[in-house]
Amino acid sequence: MAEASARSRRARGGGGAARRAERSAVSIETARFIERNIPNFEILSEEALEIIEHNAETVLEEIGVNFVQNPAALERWRQAGADVQGERVRLPRGLARQLIATAPSQFTQHARNPARSVEIGGRNLVLAPIYGPPFVHDMENGRRYATLEDFRNFVRLGYMSKWLHHSGGTVCEPTDIPVNKRHLDMLHAHMTLSDKPFMGSVTEPSRAQDSVDMAGLLFGEDFVRDNTVMTNLINVNSPMTFDDVMMGSLEVYASNNQACIISPFIVGGAMAPTTVAGTLTQVLAEVLAGIAYAQLVRPGAPVIAGAFVTSIDMNSGAPTFGTPEAAHITYGMGQIARRLGLPYRSAGSFNGSKLPDAQAAYETSNSLNVGLLAGVNFMLHSCGWLEGGLVASFEKFVMDADQLGTLHHLAKGVYMDENGQAMDAIREVGPGGHYLGCAHTHANFKTAFWRSDLLDYKPYETWIDEGGRDTMALANARVKKLLGDYQQPALDPAINEALGDFVARRKEAMPDAFS
Amino acid sequence: MAEASARSRRARGGGGAARRAERSAVSIETARFIERNIPNFEILSEEALEIIEHNAETVLEEIGVNFVQNPAALERWRQAGADVQGERVRLPRGLARQLIATAPSQFTQHARNPARSVEIGGRNLVLAPIYGPPFVHDMENGRRYATLEDFRNFVRLGYMSKWLHHSGGTVCEPTDIPVNKRHLDMLHAHMTLSDKPFMGSVTEPSRAQDSVDMAGLLFGEDFVRDNTVMTNLINVNSPMTFDDVMMGSLEVYASNNQACIISPFIVGGAMAPTTVAGTLTQVLAEVLAGIAYAQLVRPGAPVIAGAFVTSIDMNSGAPTFGTPEAAHITYGMGQIARRLGLPYRSAGSFNGSKLPDAQAAYETSNSLNVGLLAGVNFMLHSCGWLEGGLVASFEKFVMDADQLGTLHHLAKGVYMDENGQAMDAIREVGPGGHYLGCAHTHANFKTAFWRSDLLDYKPYETWIDEGGRDTMALANARVKKLLGDYQQPALDPAINEALGDFVARRKEAMPDAFS
Repeated sequence: MAEASARSRRARGGGGAARRAERSAVSIETARFIERNIPNFEILSEEALEIIEHNAETVLEEIGVNFVQNPAALERWRQAGADVQGERVRLPRGLARQLIATAPSQFTQHARNPARSVEIGGRNLVLAPIYGPPFVHDMENGRRYATLEDFRNFVRLGYMSKWLHHSGGTVCEPTDIPVNKRHLDMLHAHMTLSDKPFMGSVTEPSRAQDSVDMAGLLFGEDFVRDNTVMTNLINVNSPMTFDDVMMGSLEVYASNNQACIISPFIVGGAMAPTTVAGTLTQVLAEVLAGIAYAQLVRPGAPVIAGAFVTSIDMNSGAPTFGTPEAAHITYGMGQIARRLGLPYRSAGSFNGSKLPDAQAAYETSNSLNVGLLAGVNFMLHSCGWLEGGLVASFEKFVMDADQLGTLHHLAKGVYMDENGQAMDAIREVGPGGHYLGCAHTHANFKTAFWRSDLLDYKPYETWIDEGGRDTMALANARVKKLLGDYQQPALDPAINEALGDFVARRKEAMPDAFS
Repeated sequence: MAEASARSRRARGGGGAARRAERSAVSIETARFIERNIPNFEILSEEALEIIEHNAETVLEEIGVNFVQNPAALERWRQAGADVQGERVRLPRGLARQLIATAPSQFTQHARNPARSVEIGGRNLVLAPIYGPPFVHDMENGRRYATLEDFRNFVRLGYMSKWLHHSGGTVCEPTDIPVNKRHLDMLHAHMTLSDKPFMGSVTEPSRAQDSVDMAGLLFGEDFVRDNTVMTNLINVNSPMTFDDVMMGSLEVYASNNQACIISPFIVGGAMAPTTVAGTLTQVLAEVLAGIAYAQLVRPGAPVIAGAFVTSIDMNSGAPTFGTPEAAHITYGMGQIARRLGLPYRSAGSFNGSKLPDAQAAYETSNSLNVGLLAGVNFMLHSCGWLEGGLVASFEKFVMDADQLGTLHHLAKGVYMDENGQAMDAIREVGPGGHYLGCAHTHANFKTAFWRSDLLDYKPYETWIDEGGRDTMALANARVKKLLGDYQQPALDPAINEALGDFVARRKEAMPDAFS
């Protein structure tokens, strides 16, 4: 009767309000960032850590690092007591450690929705999506160059993903927009289509400044002056090279008290030695130099010690992901970052597969699990990564985002209170009984076990009746459902207008550039 | 020219010898069992462990366990000092711990090829394939009841799998063979088609005796009397019930000095409480009772403390795999087993998927990684598992078996010698250089990084040219390649004949039974 009545309302076209009400009931719950209640996995001994720390200081003292096309940086280093010859900067043993002492061990990145602000550092883990791919992939259309509409859809999916705390940055490259204007559209999308925290542009110092200016419009200039509202990815050109573009962006962000991830980008065997200890030594030297430089720009500027590491397939030269060697480095660098008292960025949904298939999932799962146990504080690329980072996959985005739920539950650790001990349940059930009906089970079953919102738990026959779909097909349906349910979070119309005006004005001021 | 000549030889039919020579050059290398050089992950505090141990003793003392339809067992317990009422056995606090003191902390399971014998316990990890599924699945034929020929093919694949140390037991149920005769064909296959260690039958005490008798033919009766040549899966009917079939098989094996895995089989929320601490308490109580009983049968009999644990989907009642709760239990039980000084069995290629797809791989990878870090010593089901264990998948068998390589490399830990530190390489390359050509890379590249023998590392264009295959399709090709390359390991013809005669004689002595 109720159904018939609903049907007749729809037939009359009067169901719009009801449908809207149903839609607005869609849950867009976002889990709080992970606060670990489990130990970290420590693969290196105290002795090994001391050797690596000693060797990293030797690298800084004997070999040094290059700051390229950046006279101001060289002057800062000279005044700080470094030995500067041409663009080579050699740091006396201990100088970098002395300089990084002003870096905070933990900081708040504010979101425009305060409930979604994140604490980066300590025992926390903040999850952010894939960053940087020029291509996107979905089941129907395959692999193609990414557009701004793809970008917006990934931001929408990120907003709808319960286990994702952060909207990220360049979730894909909007290749239909001129290179010098993309950052404006990307920031505008993060600021208006989501209320989660986000990242700024690093591809030119002027684009970093645009990011700071737009953040000022969103949060208020005064707020941005005193608070961190962006976390920004500053890659090191390993080995041991700091280029002017990245350092120029770092200078903008650090001087504005915005956070920088100082992240060596390492394909082992190409940008670092083939060995784990050698790679850790170089990564530590690079991180020390980069973070020390950020503190020279502004003492106390928030930073994250990063390590992006993959292995190489020595047969083909292809980077490989989810490998044991990457795991060793990720665990080891976690220990090193904690000894430095710095927040740590590493791991992600890394894989080399062309499809969101079993390879993609094996390799991703290897890396996600390592990231949790390694004590990572900020995990970029935590969902959506495909084909060595060349591709953002819609299906894999929601597949990975679902798996991130397992990290939340793992991190809770083991409850040892009376309810956790469950002795009453064991007494009630006894030998040969079963627990499905007992009081303790009734009291606990709703929250006892993690449950995927995506994966297949159905009986075989039901699964066959519903088309015998694999994970990619289930994920494809979920992408459509989430984008269909998406509703833009409210934003003050004056702010919305100011952001739109800023983007339009900046675009007008520049000729299009496509490279 | 060489190719043309080869083609003409083949056309003349004279290439048989050359092809045979090529075939016999096929590598059937098997990696040595894993010896961990990394720490275990310890999720429980000392206080938590003491609570669980105390509670498990309370369970044994107050609630007790049932030994069903087994008067001899009850008599053994009575004589050992237990309180026996009907079939309920209550153990005074401390009795079980006192009895298990005779169980070895490590033992050798001999293979007929001594190079493939395994050490079970200590810091070692021995990998064995899936056990028990009535169905098989492959890409071409889908899901179907398993046959003896399927079984033989899985044994062949296991023999050909480099990272698999153990041939396993019931890799699938040969449903075309009468129930009461299957064990004979299965053991015959393990003994003749592989030279890796294997498991005996546990489905009837008489079948356990057949297993011991056949092992006597293969290894020599004297050898079997003094050495362990089979590891056998004895499930506990959780909660706290030890049935006569399983205990009868245990009695045969323990009295013959063959190894028993005492393994509670737990779907959390059904056979144990919904909480981790409660489940660990019950599992520990069951393991203590079962292993104490094995030591009553024969002090010093080799045993393994097992824990098969999954969660339940409280929406549908389906068991779920690769979940955070299973990880907590697997980590915790590892700590408990080490405190008991017992070898530990848990984890595996667990998943609930119907296909060897991303779900299968996520869930499997979650469990395999946990198994390594939890200190598991014997991992049954380490490859081939699909659909909650109902199905042995040919493709997934080789996919998982390939991933087992990552566990071997992870377990090696980090080399800290001069070559590992790689300071010469860092000095040689310097800022802005690359490591591909340096001396250290040349000296190390062949062994530096783990490399899959299955997964796709090719450039996108090559991958498309070769058909754009997903992991299942790549694995299908690998299954065919391995079965095509398979060559039966040599066996003394007299032993071969004796085994064949035994199987024929025992089959003749029994009418067929199909349930």
